[in-house]
Amino acid sequence: VTAAIIAIGDELLAPGRVETNSAFLTDELARAGIRVGYRAVVGDDDDAIARATRDALVRNDLVFLTGGLGPTSDDRTRDAVATALELEMSVDESILRAIQARFDERGLTMPDVNRRQAMVPREATVLPNRHGTAPGLWITPEAQEFGARKLVVLLPGPPAELQPMYLDQVAMRLADYSSSVVYDVRKLWVAGLPESAVEQKILSTYRSVDNPSTSLLASSGQVEIRLTANAASADEAAATNERLASRLRKLLGEAIFSESEQTLEAVIGGLLLARNQRITVAESLTGGLIAHRITDVPGSSQYFDESFVTYSNEAKTELLGVPAGLFGTGGAVSEDVARAMAVGARRRARSDLAVAVTGIAGPGGGTETKPVGLVFIGLATAREVRVERFHFPGGRRQIKRWSSQAALNMVRLELLKELSSSDASVSGD
Amino acid sequence: VTAAIIAIGDELLAPGRVETNSAFLTDELARAGIRVGYRAVVGDDDDAIARATRDALVRNDLVFLTGGLGPTSDDRTRDAVATALELEMSVDESILRAIQARFDERGLTMPDVNRRQAMVPREATVLPNRHGTAPGLWITPEAQEFGARKLVVLLPGPPAELQPMYLDQVAMRLADYSSSVVYDVRKLWVAGLPESAVEQKILSTYRSVDNPSTSLLASSGQVEIRLTANAASADEAAATNERLASRLRKLLGEAIFSESEQTLEAVIGGLLLARNQRITVAESLTGGLIAHRITDVPGSSQYFDESFVTYSNEAKTELLGVPAGLFGTGGAVSEDVARAMAVGARRRARSDLAVAVTGIAGPGGGTETKPVGLVFIGLATAREVRVERFHFPGGRRQIKRWSSQAALNMVRLELLKELSSSDASVSGD
Repeated sequence: VTAAIIAIGDELLAPGRVETNSAFLTDELARAGIRVGYRAVVGDDDDAIARATRDALVRNDLVFLTGGLGPTSDDRTRDAVATALELEMSVDESILRAIQARFDERGLTMPDVNRRQAMVPREATVLPNRHGTAPGLWITPEAQEFGARKLVVLLPGPPAELQPMYLDQVAMRLADYSSSVVYDVRKLWVAGLPESAVEQKILSTYRSVDNPSTSLLASSGQVEIRLTANAASADEAAATNERLASRLRKLLGEAIFSESEQTLEAVIGGLLLARNQRITVAESLTGGLIAHRITDVPGSSQYFDESFVTYSNEAKTELLGVPAGLFGTGGAVSEDVARAMAVGARRRARSDLAVAVTGIAGPGGGTETKPVGLVFIGLATAREVRVERFHFPGGRRQIKRWSSQAALNMVRLELLKELSSSDASVSGD
Repeated sequence: VTAAIIAIGDELLAPGRVETNSAFLTDELARAGIRVGYRAVVGDDDDAIARATRDALVRNDLVFLTGGLGPTSDDRTRDAVATALELEMSVDESILRAIQARFDERGLTMPDVNRRQAMVPREATVLPNRHGTAPGLWITPEAQEFGARKLVVLLPGPPAELQPMYLDQVAMRLADYSSSVVYDVRKLWVAGLPESAVEQKILSTYRSVDNPSTSLLASSGQVEIRLTANAASADEAAATNERLASRLRKLLGEAIFSESEQTLEAVIGGLLLARNQRITVAESLTGGLIAHRITDVPGSSQYFDESFVTYSNEAKTELLGVPAGLFGTGGAVSEDVARAMAVGARRRARSDLAVAVTGIAGPGGGTETKPVGLVFIGLATAREVRVERFHFPGGRRQIKRWSSQAALNMVRLELLKELSSSDASVSGD
């Protein structure tokens, strides 16, 4: 069983744009034992979409089209697919009501153009969109020219709409199309080590096995290790991955922060909840990014009350009690200031743990002794205060991102230490 | 002039693989004024490659194929393209000698399979590969069915071979193809209006002209309007875009926040600098995201000293002076609390302007009267304090993003108002 994925949108063909839905679908289809045999990106053009759809359908069993389902006139997918498959379109009243309701909820009048989103081929099953107005469509074309058991699925372009729709409504419907070879994808996420160091630790191990295949993917401050195993059954494929994963776990230890797509901030959230501890943050260089990441986690209000963005020296003194004299001696970017920020934030927020970041984000402000990318991160707990010094590469945003990652990883390792030392004291009783 | 890019290789269709050559070529072609109209990834299959090539060539002037030029039997590109274009293949002795020399240099015997790499269509120009054995090919097919002045370029798959070959040997040869029609891309960015409302305002205008072509792209809280004009010269193309842009400006007015890829936060930074004003933020729902966005802008320390992430009620009271009684009457998510947060933050940070956000990010915590997505944004200046109420769709991250966008847009409109009223008072003197 093979699938084709066609991503639609002029903007996806523009320089600098990355199309991510195809990668998501490729991964998810692999879980169902469905191999992708063709991927394309086409513009907002009826003829191009129709040609790509027909062509893909001849050579593949399943065709997924993403994007171009919006309400505006350059959203061409519905019409083009109907043309390609010779389907008749009509207004689906239930979709119309659902779209109407979304506008009503927000006290807005539904623009006339949104009516287009309720036009669907008669043969289609509608996939409701809980995160947007464009419903998905599940179509089993009858035209015999394409062969038997063909399937065309239309999904909305925004990943925040496409992903839940696929996971909640499409995945289970695909059981009929799954094949005899099953794939299992396993991911291990590493923080605190550069990609080359991760590779050095594990290369000879993962190279020694053909199945699963292993790939590394680095992004600011973390490395994703992806194992893809194939086998005759899902259990066997999972077991094949687990055999290698357990060897990698021994080699990497605590550097692995997640095996479940959990973000670093979500992992920390879990650790804080388990310890019944609360955290605060004092941010100069990161300017709110760490607090933003912490509060991206649902339920973070259980362990996060407040934090401080202190960009100017005066704010550091006034809000966090950093002695003004420190700025004269070592400057705002120094070990002493990072330490004082962490201690001050912890006291001020009456939290168990505080992490503080000061550094030079650039592009200006660097000097020979304090170059752009120099960052001090302070961590204060009831037991100790310590500061680590980093020098991160890249531009302003990358340095902010790296710094937030390093700060959160320091917090994670501290919480693991506390957990294991308290475990030890329990078992020593 | 449009180009198609076809990446070839079974491995590129596997889960977890990212295909990077297409992005490289898209960016480089844009520099030469060549727009990419179609991208595909196909497996190592003669028929699939030939079909994709012919199809791409009908609809585009240039077709770039990457990968599948290696010596092994699953490297199909040369043969498939020769079939598609009905070209005769023969051994090129100079390629054969070059491949032989690479093996000799390293003291190795050339395997017989590498002879395949010396098979080229008679009509092709060979592009030597200084970083590997597979030469590239530059083919101008004569078959009239595809139309005049078509070009097919075959490049090796490894980026370390493809990139120097493109930059050193292909880019300058494209001059003939890039000169005749020049493209100009213009973008207008709109905040504060949903995509459908933007379209309703401008559809009939942009539909009334064929050149430039116009497309809309929405992402949380902003809409990108992209105009692509073509003309015989760069100046003419730019003027063609400007004619439509000036009409759209009249229709959209202050809803357009940028025409230069500047983010909303960068636009606000410019306005604050121009007014010599400073800003602060009090964030509950957005949890640091607004401060993070403000501090993403280089030089933001000139107008941003500090801000407050106040997640708990106690933090709102202690840091911002929000009267504790307000939480009892209207709850933390209310107009009154948003107002008090803005006023308190402005006073505390001694800033000219303060924006405050409180709301329900979900997934939990929503009620019938206060559903997930309900957000109050307060804005305090020396002249006034006001609060706007929003109801945003989507999940937690989307709601945070929408809220930050709405808050920054309120700030922007306020600063524009102040600018124009101060202009008015100057002109009234």
